[in-house]
Amino acid sequence: MKNQLPDNIKKDIKEIENDNTSGSVELAKKSAEIIINLVNQTGDLEQIKKASLSLVEAQPNMASIFNLVNNLMFYIDKNKKQQLKKIVTNYCKNYLNNLENFEKKIKDQAINLIKNRARIITHSYSSTVLGTLLFLKESKKEISVICTESRPKNEGIKLAKELGKNKIKVKLLVDSAIFSLIPYADIILIGGDAITENGLINKIGTKGIATVAQHYKTPIYALCSTEKLLPKKYPINLDHLKNPNEIIQYNISNVTAVNYYFDLTPLDFFTGFITEKEILKPEEIKEIIINLKIHDNFSDLLSDEDLDIPLI
Amino acid sequence: MKNQLPDNIKKDIKEIENDNTSGSVELAKKSAEIIINLVNQTGDLEQIKKASLSLVEAQPNMASIFNLVNNLMFYIDKNKKQQLKKIVTNYCKNYLNNLENFEKKIKDQAINLIKNRARIITHSYSSTVLGTLLFLKESKKEISVICTESRPKNEGIKLAKELGKNKIKVKLLVDSAIFSLIPYADIILIGGDAITENGLINKIGTKGIATVAQHYKTPIYALCSTEKLLPKKYPINLDHLKNPNEIIQYNISNVTAVNYYFDLTPLDFFTGFITEKEILKPEEIKEIIINLKIHDNFSDLLSDEDLDIPLI
Repeated sequence: MKNQLPDNIKKDIKEIENDNTSGSVELAKKSAEIIINLVNQTGDLEQIKKASLSLVEAQPNMASIFNLVNNLMFYIDKNKKQQLKKIVTNYCKNYLNNLENFEKKIKDQAINLIKNRARIITHSYSSTVLGTLLFLKESKKEISVICTESRPKNEGIKLAKELGKNKIKVKLLVDSAIFSLIPYADIILIGGDAITENGLINKIGTKGIATVAQHYKTPIYALCSTEKLLPKKYPINLDHLKNPNEIIQYNISNVTAVNYYFDLTPLDFFTGFITEKEILKPEEIKEIIINLKIHDNFSDLLSDEDLDIPLI
Repeated sequence: MKNQLPDNIKKDIKEIENDNTSGSVELAKKSAEIIINLVNQTGDLEQIKKASLSLVEAQPNMASIFNLVNNLMFYIDKNKKQQLKKIVTNYCKNYLNNLENFEKKIKDQAINLIKNRARIITHSYSSTVLGTLLFLKESKKEISVICTESRPKNEGIKLAKELGKNKIKVKLLVDSAIFSLIPYADIILIGGDAITENGLINKIGTKGIATVAQHYKTPIYALCSTEKLLPKKYPINLDHLKNPNEIIQYNISNVTAVNYYFDLTPLDFFTGFITEKEILKPEEIKEIIINLKIHDNFSDLLSDEDLDIPLI
């Protein structure tokens, strides 16, 4: 079949789909590499479109992947007189460069915001948060960090290890214990997988932390470049359930383990969003989102449904 | 030494101290049995006073134990002409009877409050909540229950098993996932180890759940008989840390695992308190607390300090 993707590409996309531990930026980088590989193998636009759609479907909540391929489609439309291989390769390389620059710019914003001796709370694992905390340390700011385990996959322990290895003092708590410390922290920094007009999509538990932070007026910032922003009608899927064995490994009569990975936190709960441009307020994020467009390649995905997790 | 407690009593009190899984009511029952054993062995008032103090110190956050022995001291003062053995035995048996009656009365209040087909959220394990949920089921109310794991000791899984065994449909979530379901639940029922003027002391995580419940206006009730109420100046100790090995079992450089078991949730976060008397509002609970008295036997324990967990 002409439109069937090559086996190696299918395998790579499957790996993206099964990747439960990498952050959004890492997955976007891998996706860009898959697209570059594909255009080198085939040079066929239909295949590029098909792979783009498959990548979005593999990790529908990862905005960086969607923005990579959505903007690629618009870029191809605009430059259709050039050779496809050249367009795609240039675009992807540029996107990857941008991602790295964005991280640097986020760190620069953060260092101005965070005072010396700050007691910082974070949740789960975010490569942007990790990079920023390490940059604070390199910049001779004394910080201490409070990490959550982040059940079921314990990515918070992974973050704690990286911070500890770099001589940052860390307190590690079970997820439920973080609320008691929120009133005493100077700032809460979290990552984010995507931002829609309805809220920030991030690792499960963010919603509780942000609600309590708002109650106690503890400043809470999401570290997100604007390539995490998603247009209206983009079909976020929060009730996509993961393997229940990550919660319990045996059967209990009448008990169903329900394994959500992500939750949705209203944008207004955040003090601000540290982006590559500047620190944006919730209403500024909403204004940007209104103007985002979805390419026709993804029109079959569009949804009018409400985004929050329904009670299953 | 005259005042040294007998070895078997010391051993029993040590068991109370090391008991990390029993609820407040179970521990009070065991404590009453220890006091009855002691008075049968010695009949010495000083020993009873010493054991009472040791029991309170073994589980300082368990109001039922404090109220058992605090009220016993007042009762002994009032009846000092009678034989100590008889006074203590009668009092303890009466207290144990009361505890059971209280549970029954709490169930009766709950059944009027909870509608058929209610979707109920709970957290961790409470024998009173378990008893009430089973009573709802026996009373032919169809209910479904959402339980949390309750890290680090997973008492929520213990609750889920008991409910499932009794044919109640249960969804089991990681602790961080509960917040997304709070807007969709009909009611949240939780237990409680103690109530002070500053808040409800309960298993870690309650504070986050109650804050989010208040935000989304989901009714949240604590099931607590009035023997969970503690007088002003009673020395609650929330920063008593448990074994860090319950969080991680190996050393990570610069990382300290901090294991809190309890948190403090302001009374105003609750819709009400289902007691053996009636469903009380936060301000009614506060009024009762103002009039509670501490016996001189415990005067060395008193504290003026603030109760919340400090940032360690």
